Formats: sequence, C-alpha cells, structure tokens
Amino acid sequence: MTEVSFLRTLAERLPDIGDDCAVVEIGATQVLLKVDMLIEDVHFRPGERTAADVGYRALARPLSDIAAMGGRPQFALVSLAVAPWTTEAWLTGFYDGLLALASRHNIRVVGGDLSHTSKLIADVFLVGQATRPLRRSTAQPGDLLYVTGPLGKQKWRFSPRLALGQRLARDPQVTACMDLSDGLALDLHRLAFASSLEARLTHVPVQKGAHLARALHYGEDYELLIARTGPWPNPPQGVIPIGRLVKGKQPGRVLLTGTRVPPVGYDHLKQT
Amino acid sequence: MTEVSFLRTLAERLPDIGDDCAVVEIGATQVLLKVDMLIEDVHFRPGERTAADVGYRALARPLSDIAAMGGRPQFALVSLAVAPWTTEAWLTGFYDGLLALASRHNIRVVGGDLSHTSKLIADVFLVGQATRPLRRSTAQPGDLLYVTGPLGKQKWRFSPRLALGQRLARDPQVTACMDLSDGLALDLHRLAFASSLEARLTHVPVQKGAHLARALHYGEDYELLIARTGPWPNPPQGVIPIGRLVKGKQPGRVLLTGTRVPPVGYDHLKQT
Repeated sequence: MTEVSFLRTLAERLPDIGDDCAVVEIGATQVLLKVDMLIEDVHFRPGERTAADVGYRALARPLSDIAAMGGRPQFALVSLAVAPWTTEAWLTGFYDGLLALASRHNIRVVGGDLSHTSKLIADVFLVGQATRPLRRSTAQPGDLLYVTGPLGKQKWRFSPRLALGQRLARDPQVTACMDLSDGLALDLHRLAFASSLEARLTHVPVQKGAHLARALHYGEDYELLIARTGPWPNPPQGVIPIGRLVKGKQPGRVLLTGTRVPPVGYDHLKQT
Repeated sequence: MTEVSFLRTLAERLPDIGDDCAVVEIGATQVLLKVDMLIEDVHFRPGERTAADVGYRALARPLSDIAAMGGRPQFALVSLAVAPWTTEAWLTGFYDGLLALASRHNIRVVGGDLSHTSKLIADVFLVGQATRPLRRSTAQPGDLLYVTGPLGKQKWRFSPRLALGQRLARDPQVTACMDLSDGLALDLHRLAFASSLEARLTHVPVQKGAHLARALHYGEDYELLIARTGPWPNPPQGVIPIGRLVKGKQPGRVLLTGTRVPPVGYDHLKQT
C-alpha cells in the first residue's frame, strides 16, 4: 500500500479533501481547518532537536497551510502522545517553543489531549478564517507561476508566510496558491493537475549551498507556490517568477525548459 | 510525572482549558472544538477489536464531549498514524466504522493527516456549534444531580448522547453538564470542584452485571452527568437522580451516604 494510492481511495469517499486546508462555512464566516502530525523518527529524532524546536515546528507546519490559503489563524488544539523517554522538562520546552510561535501570530491554544505511546506524536489542529481562500484548482491557462523564496535549503525553524499569504488573498489576480512541503516537482504537479493544466518551468531558484535536485524534490521548503494572471509590476519582496501554466494534453505534467520533471517528492521516491 | 500534575502546570499557561470542549466565538457563533486520541495498546488492542470498531470509537469518544456541552457536531478531521501491521483492508474498515457514525449525526469529514509510526494512533478533531454551551463550573448550591443511565458496564460501541445533550441545553434549569469518561467519582469531583461545591451522592445506579466500585471508578461510561436546579417533573427517559450539590468547606469533595468517595478514576489509580 502506498500513501498515494490510499489517499486516492480515501478522496473518493471524502470529496471535500484536496486543498492545503479544509474550508467550511460557520455562520457567514469562511473557516479554515487544518491538522498536522509531527512524529518521532519520521519527522524528527529527539537527540537531534531541542524540545522547543519540536514544539515550534509542530505548529509551524500547519500554519504554513493556513498561510497558503491566505488565512488568518485563530485557535489551536494540541494532541500530544508522549514517549517513555519524555520528561516534564521536555514537555515544558515543547510548549515553550509552540506557545512562542502561537503568541507571535495571536493564536490562542484552547485545548488538546495528552496521552502516551512508544514514539512521541504531536498533532496540531488549527482553526483560521479566510476572506478569500486561495485554492489549488482555480489557476487559469496563461497564469504566471511564482515562489516566495529560493528552494532546497530546508530550515527547521522556518517562518510561515502568513502576512504574505493574506496579501495574496487580497490581490484578485492571484488565482491559486499552495505551500511547498513535498518539493516543487510534486507540489506544482498537484496544483497543475487540480487546475487541469500543464506547467512550464523556466527557472528554479536554488538556495545558496543547495542544488537543483534538492530544490525540486526534497520538500520542506515551506515557501508558497503562486499562480497569478497578468503582469505583476510590484510583487512582494522575495517573490520569484518560475514559469507559467498552459493548456495541455496531460494535466499535471511539469516541464523544465523542455524536459519532463517527474512528480516525485520527499519520502516518496518510489512512485508518483 | 503524573498526568494530573502536568495538566495542572499546563492549565496555568492555557487558562482556556477546563470543560469537555473548548468554546470559541467565530463571527456571532459559539463554536465547540474538541480533539481526542485513540492509541494502540493504550485504548485498544488490534487483535481484540475490528477495524470498524476502532474507527467507530475514535469518533464516538470526542462526540460524547460535544454531547456533554449540548452541542451539534458539524465537521471532523482525522489524523491517522498507521502501524507496521496496518493493511489497506484495515484502513478501509476503520473509515467504514468512523464514517457510518459520522453519517448518522450529519458530520462532514473534511480533512485529516496520514502518516506512520510504531503503534497506531487515531486523533479525531471535531468542530460543533452550541447555542448555550453547558459547562462544569456553573452548577449552583442545592442543584440536583442526575446521570443519563446506569454505570459500570462499559460498552465499546456506545451511543453519544447528542440529542439528549441538545435537549438539556434548551432547559434553562440545567446549570452544568459533563460526560462520564473517567468514572463518576473523579468526574463528579471535577464538576463539583469547578463549581466550588461539594457533592452528596444518595444513589449510584449500577448496570446489571457490574458492581459499585466499577460504577464509581472504572470510567468509559459515556453517560452524561447533569446538575439541575429545582424539581424535574418529566425528565427525559433514562435520566436517574443520584444526589445533590451543596456548599461546603472542601470544594470537590464527594460523599456517598456519608462516606467520602476518593476522586480516583480509570487508569489513575495511584493518585488524585
């Protein structure tokens, strides 16, 4: 069983799943819902990260999805299953890291669950609001593609692009957006596929010290991938054009200066 | 480190935590938020339960908290970290059980996360609405206490008391409510303590085949514990009077016909 095949099966039963966050209406408000797990020995090794680093990242990752939808995060719930090695000092450090980031973005941590298991798992649930949620499926033929920074050099304590995402949501020419968590190759494939388009990359900005394969396939960049219609005379600082979307016979196909880029991402090197 | 001592430390940093669900305002709507983990070898053993049973219960447990607050559940997100033994057939069964219960209560499963670890964990996040959220801290001296059924005989596929909870929320004489997940002794202590009152039990309804200690301390009843002011000529079917709340010098103290009942619950037999 591959994750992709199972997610396809699941998607048929749960038609709402597809964007970086779920979008639901509560009263007259468009509400974003997101959940994301951070797991020992999958996403981090305790000996290599401080407790505060783990807490920071457990919140930063789903925050990046709220950012990609142009949302404003409001509430968080934290489920934590601790491991036999977990001490009270570690837990305190974990919440230090998490609550510092929450405070920076005015997020209230309003609940959670605490239990124990063999490998530590932190599962963070976020509730946000969006005036115009930015989706993956709404890009148009001819839209230009952008990323919000160079790719390929993963930073553990990255800054979720919340202010930038909210600015993009106010720009009616921005047609689609998502965050780059699994690598440009796979994530651009997903955006193009969701919009029934092909992508033509002309430039992949590579972070100093990284290389092209890393920028395309390694993931965990947590920059935003943007599709936007028409010229953009004054893009926000850091935004870099990388190509365009076109009609084509193979929705989801990505070409880099004529060569096909396979939709292969981080931790999924076996299949598409 | 005990769970209770850590939760006390945490509660000081997160003053919103305390009721069965978090209550937040989104627009003009009072929204209930709840998350709950179901963990292999803590809450179930795979060989003893079908996949559908696990899926059912992963949703039923947090639903009971929505019920206790008088809420109407609307949206769910499901985080699942699968174990090495997990097959695609098991996953399908898990979602069969979960989605059948979701469908019964008109809950839309709108998202989730899927990863892997050594012991399976299902973490279910729920969003609901409540016109008048029923809390623990608002009971009054002299209120009578009730439970919604006999205690002590845990049923794996219990029915969350959603319709009953919503009916209680419409009754202005109902002053407080919570669900019985950790046993009447500990949960009644919590409600009385939160309301700065003592409790006097006159009757503990014991499920046929169970015994008093089980009814008091074993937990996982998932009935509702209700505090209500004044006489109740026509209580809903199944509701059983068990005693009353009084002023006292030791908030949270529970007496059963004069004898102190220690606030000891399921899986916490070491301390209060």
